[in-house]
Amino acid sequence: MAGNEVTQPAEKLVCAAVPDAPNATWTNAWRLGHEVVLSGMTAHPASRIAAEQRAPLGAYEQTMCVLGKLEALVQAAGGHRHNLVKTVVYLTDIADKDAVGRARRDFFGDVFPCSTLVAVSALVFPELRVEIDAWARLDVDLRQARLHPND
Amino acid sequence: MAGNEVTQPAEKLVCAAVPDAPNATWTNAWRLGHEVVLSGMTAHPASRIAAEQRAPLGAYEQTMCVLGKLEALVQAAGGHRHNLVKTVVYLTDIADKDAVGRARRDFFGDVFPCSTLVAVSALVFPELRVEIDAWARLDVDLRQARLHPND
Amino acid sequence: MAGNEVTQPAEKLVCAAVPDAPNATWTNAWRLGHEVVLSGMTAHPASRIAAEQRAPLGAYEQTMCVLGKLEALVQAAGGHRHNLVKTVVYLTDIADKDAVGRARRDFFGDVFPCSTLVAVSALVFPELRVEIDAWARLDVDLRQARLHPND
Repeated sequence: MAGNEVTQPAEKLVCAAVPDAPNATWTNAWRLGHEVVLSGMTAHPASRIAAEQRAPLGAYEQTMCVLGKLEALVQAAGGHRHNLVKTVVYLTDIADKDAVGRARRDFFGDVFPCSTLVAVSALVFPELRVEIDAWARLDVDLRQARLHPND
Repeated sequence: MAGNEVTQPAEKLVCAAVPDAPNATWTNAWRLGHEVVLSGMTAHPASRIAAEQRAPLGAYEQTMCVLGKLEALVQAAGGHRHNLVKTVVYLTDIADKDAVGRARRDFFGDVFPCSTLVAVSALVFPELRVEIDAWARLDVDLRQARLHPND
Repeated sequence: MAGNEVTQPAEKLVCAAVPDAPNATWTNAWRLGHEVVLSGMTAHPASRIAAEQRAPLGAYEQTMCVLGKLEALVQAAGGHRHNLVKTVVYLTDIADKDAVGRARRDFFGDVFPCSTLVAVSALVFPELRVEIDAWARLDVDLRQARLHPND
């Protein structure tokens, strides 16, 4: 059939802030044309180190860490945090939703991506309180938005 | 690097059926070119009001409400319900899946988006039984589909 | 408004490996231009048959079955497994994550899509241990990747 030609380069995004895990069976992020495809991010290993030091990271700190990783991956593609257009937030305790909201405000200012938030029964490590999946587009900047259909 | 120019306007979609929540740290929906990026929708606040009146909304009613909100956001971009190409349904009780199916049939007729359905441990408010995340494309109409590869 | 023309054909992807469920209120997969939009896949009905024979499928076997279904749907669009660019893995027991990793390595080799993995409270049938949602792009081949920004 027509239209299946490989026309977009796939670029594996590499950055110091999000090292590849040993034996990982996923890729942290791919740039595919103007899209950045991302894996869900957690605060690991900072959350592990903090837990071992009996000073576990709370939901706010973990969320800030995760948003910083997502930003770093988008920056590796030449973009920035306002290219993040959608997140899906997985919590282990729904009571953490307000802490996530505070972190989102501190991180994004007043220009927010779309978001979905649910509590799940477990994340990959027991000290994790939040995992955030995301979608990014390099050809848009949410700060340059207009209202629709009202303007 | 090349190719990071902002070439798509980002339009914040606004509609009366889905008012912005006070202090929200997310955007209900963005139009980015031919894509409508959406936040997961719930039946709140109708579900809250009903619960307070001791007549809580069931999964069918909540699903119809949620699908109506997703439609309203896509309509704000000039589209319609058959631009919705994928949903992810989060339930608090897996037994509600049949009620969700009935609502989907009543809403979509016989042209269905892709869908994933799981039960989670909690949604943002205790009276919620269902949250639906979605993806929409304005440049396709699922009613104008053909089978592939058989025709 | 401008730009809402239907310009991409929607093709319902049909393949023998993933028959339509009777009374389904979702579509297994749509091809929309260079994107393949997919529904979350499970090992049903193989997992049901195995459970009834008191030889339930483990997480590894279910994951291999699911990845094979996703591949079959992408193949129905003229593509292959290395068009799968992102997965979201839902487990019923987080302890199954290593089995999922083994299956991913056996299936993808050393070129991995992005991935998010969480444990949920239930999937649609009790014998299911894993459901995988996915995103695919026909205009990229992850085997033809380059590192960015380091090369």
